[in-house]
Amino acid sequence: MTLGTVTLVGAGPGDAGLLTLRGLRALQQADVIVADRLGARAVLAQLADEGVQLDAEVIDVGKLPGHHPVPQDGINELLVSLAQEGRRVVRLKGGDPFVFGRGREEQLFCEAAGIEVEVIPGVTSAVAVPGLAGIPLTQRGIAETFTVASAHDQIEALGGGRDHTVVLLMGVNTLGHSAHVLAAGSRGADCPVAIIEDGFGARQRVTVGTLGTIAHLAAVRQVRSPAVVVVGDVVALSPHAGISPS
Amino acid sequence: MTLGTVTLVGAGPGDAGLLTLRGLRALQQADVIVADRLGARAVLAQLADEGVQLDAEVIDVGKLPGHHPVPQDGINELLVSLAQEGRRVVRLKGGDPFVFGRGREEQLFCEAAGIEVEVIPGVTSAVAVPGLAGIPLTQRGIAETFTVASAHDQIEALGGGRDHTVVLLMGVNTLGHSAHVLAAGSRGADCPVAIIEDGFGARQRVTVGTLGTIAHLAAVRQVRSPAVVVVGDVVALSPHAGISPS
Ligand SMILES: C[S@@+](CC[C@H](N)C(=O)[O-])C[C@H]1O[C@@H](n2cnc3c(N)ncnc32)[C@H](O)[C@@H]1O
Ligand SMILES: C[S@@+](CC[C@H](N)C(=O)[O-])C[C@H]1O[C@@H](n2cnc3c(N)ncnc32)[C@H](O)[C@@H]1O
Repeated sequence: MTLGTVTLVGAGPGDAGLLTLRGLRALQQADVIVADRLGARAVLAQLADEGVQLDAEVIDVGKLPGHHPVPQDGINELLVSLAQEGRRVVRLKGGDPFVFGRGREEQLFCEAAGIEVEVIPGVTSAVAVPGLAGIPLTQRGIAETFTVASAHDQIEALGGGRDHTVVLLMGVNTLGHSAHVLAAGSRGADCPVAIIEDGFGARQRVTVGTLGTIAHLAAVRQVRSPAVVVVGDVVALSPHAGISPS
Repeated sequence: MTLGTVTLVGAGPGDAGLLTLRGLRALQQADVIVADRLGARAVLAQLADEGVQLDAEVIDVGKLPGHHPVPQDGINELLVSLAQEGRRVVRLKGGDPFVFGRGREEQLFCEAAGIEVEVIPGVTSAVAVPGLAGIPLTQRGIAETFTVASAHDQIEALGGGRDHTVVLLMGVNTLGHSAHVLAAGSRGADCPVAIIEDGFGARQRVTVGTLGTIAHLAAVRQVRSPAVVVVGDVVALSPHAGISPS
């Protein structure tokens, strides 16, 4: 039997309008779509609402019936076995597949099994979600560098001041620690911080504070994942800055 | 007269297939498109080749007849005056408008003139161009942080080792200096580096070396802008790594 193919598609941050043209084409040609929780599922639902017909079977690996997500090894094996059945598989991932997406791992695993893999990049939440709040990651004279990290990482080693924007993904649970570490460096406790929850979703909300106040604000406002945290002087460019959250 | 509107659209890195669905819709509804040199023009040319009909006038601000690009102030004024004529203006920018794109500046200038501005994010070259060479910016166990900088910036202040990916935009001319600074830090002279020139374009080419060798390689191979430079252990995940460039 002929082998199928795997196409890794970046679904963007959860707005079907931010899917790429190539991404849409891949979905339309797919026999089966293996979808993530964040971004990917929202995009499929919106496409259906807009009357975009997809013929593919959809397998949701974000959650199994028993509410446990499929572990990465299981996803890798699933992609290979679907392709070995001769099917055109789309692996639909939130944002971009190569930004905290494990896309390259999936690609290498499939290629090791002899399966052809194409990668279609996407709009990453690291850029688009701050943008929703009017926050550019760079701005002439304000910031010319940005770092994207997950909270699990050693932002301790990160130099730079407020003109070096920091974007934290998966950073809600460890926000207090991250804010503390960044405030202790050259950014200082009054460095502006914004949290954008559920960008492009029903619970979208922006919270603005400083490295000194943000952990308290987040607790009071019960900030929840998914959220993007942005630290640096670019936050002051947001229309939400200066408006105290209530 | 009714005021027009301005829509900032991220064109992506120069492949019409990486335009977003909302971006395409905005182009199709535009009366006038103000296009950048990189990415934007290539995307318009490809759309025309594919038979996608756009009714808009196209103004190219990347180059004037006398080969000088329009300065930023001129672009800002142009956007406002076009919108004041009541037209629907699309400002088409390479990659994402908020990543080294001066998009927020243009937005604030237009809004100060009372013009409504919408921003449609795009696929940034900082992520998609390394991806072309099989290089993810993060990978479990290899790199959990990445920094995007322009060479003009102080990467001196940047901490971290090879597990902290560095992406340089606009970095070709100052590559020697950047490589020297990064090698002197904890990354070391044998840290892998890749340069991807003209991603998605006719001159697309990948050069792989180390912080110690890359400036020489780039000179020998006459590496030219536009190019994205990636530094860190993720470069070893590229199929180009280990193949010595000739
Ligand atoms: C595992 S990472 C995947 C990132 C993805 N590959 C990308 O490029 O956007 C998931 C994290 O992305 C962020 N995220 C993704 N989509 C988001 C959204 N719509 N709103 C807020 N945060 C989002 C959150 O920080 C979340 O914890
Ligand atoms: C002024 S910056 C604009 C970046 C853009 N806003 C983005 O998000 O991709 C221009 C730089 O982006 C990089 N670049 C953009 N498109 C590229 C491409 N197709 N191939 C290689 N580099 C590219 C180069 O480093 C170039 O010097």
